Amino acid sequence: METIFTKIRDNQIPSVKLHQDELCFVILDINPVNKGHLLIITSEPYPTIAACPDETLTHLMTITKIADGRLRSVLGCDATNIVINNGKESGQEVPHLHIHVIPRYQDDGKMIRLPKQQYNEGEMRALGARLEF
Amino acid sequence: METIFTKIRDNQIPSVKLHQDELCFVILDINPVNKGHLLIITSEPYPTIAACPDETLTHLMTITKIADGRLRSVLGCDATNIVINNGKESGQEVPHLHIHVIPRYQDDGKMIRLPKQQYNEGEMRALGARLEF
Repeated sequence: METIFTKIRDNQIPSVKLHQDELCFVILDINPVNKGHLLIITSEPYPTIAACPDETLTHLMTITKIADGRLRSVLGCDATNIVINNGKESGQEVPHLHIHVIPRYQDDGKMIRLPKQQYNEGEMRALGARLEF
Repeated sequence: METIFTKIRDNQIPSVKLHQDELCFVILDINPVNKGHLLIITSEPYPTIAACPDETLTHLMTITKIADGRLRSVLGCDATNIVINNGKESGQEVPHLHIHVIPRYQDDGKMIRLPKQQYNEGEMRALGARLEF
């Protein structure tokens, strides 16, 4: 399957690449939340983590840790958000697994704020029993 | 170091636990974005991924994949958001590493929307050269 990311992987579409290995590659997002916002993308176009082999998934985390360190040391950012939109209905724009790493600064106005729900009495414990693993 | 999460780990504070092993434990968030919103928390109180050993970090991803599967099969959610707020300035409320896994549904109004920046001409390539690894 071809995606915009497989074309970027193969240099058919230009990008700014920060890293490339057998299992993944890393590019700068062209529409950054903050400058330096990068994407860690699987070489193979797995749509979500469900389809991604454990070996690749764990490699992505090792690369995420390195990328986080690069953003902190080069940009001097205070923190990062690490986000996987895992499926179209979560805001995933390309059906090809990728991790956003977003450099963050105190009071930069980029807080993730989402409306919350409330559990009714007993509902949380009952749901927990169904979800246990 | 004690955190609210080490107290939950040790059952000094009640919670709804979905899973516990040597390296991490999983609870329901009491203020869910959507019901079933869960937290995967390291057993040791590493503040961010920078301090977390690779073995633990990769285990967290294996558990994230299982948790994502449980949310999809039990709740029938369409997708998930997987989020690490990695440092106080990114919105991390407890300085103890945890991964949010949030069940998502089409048109549930919980999209992560953040204002974007723009690169000036040449800026993106120059930044990329500094961030390479």
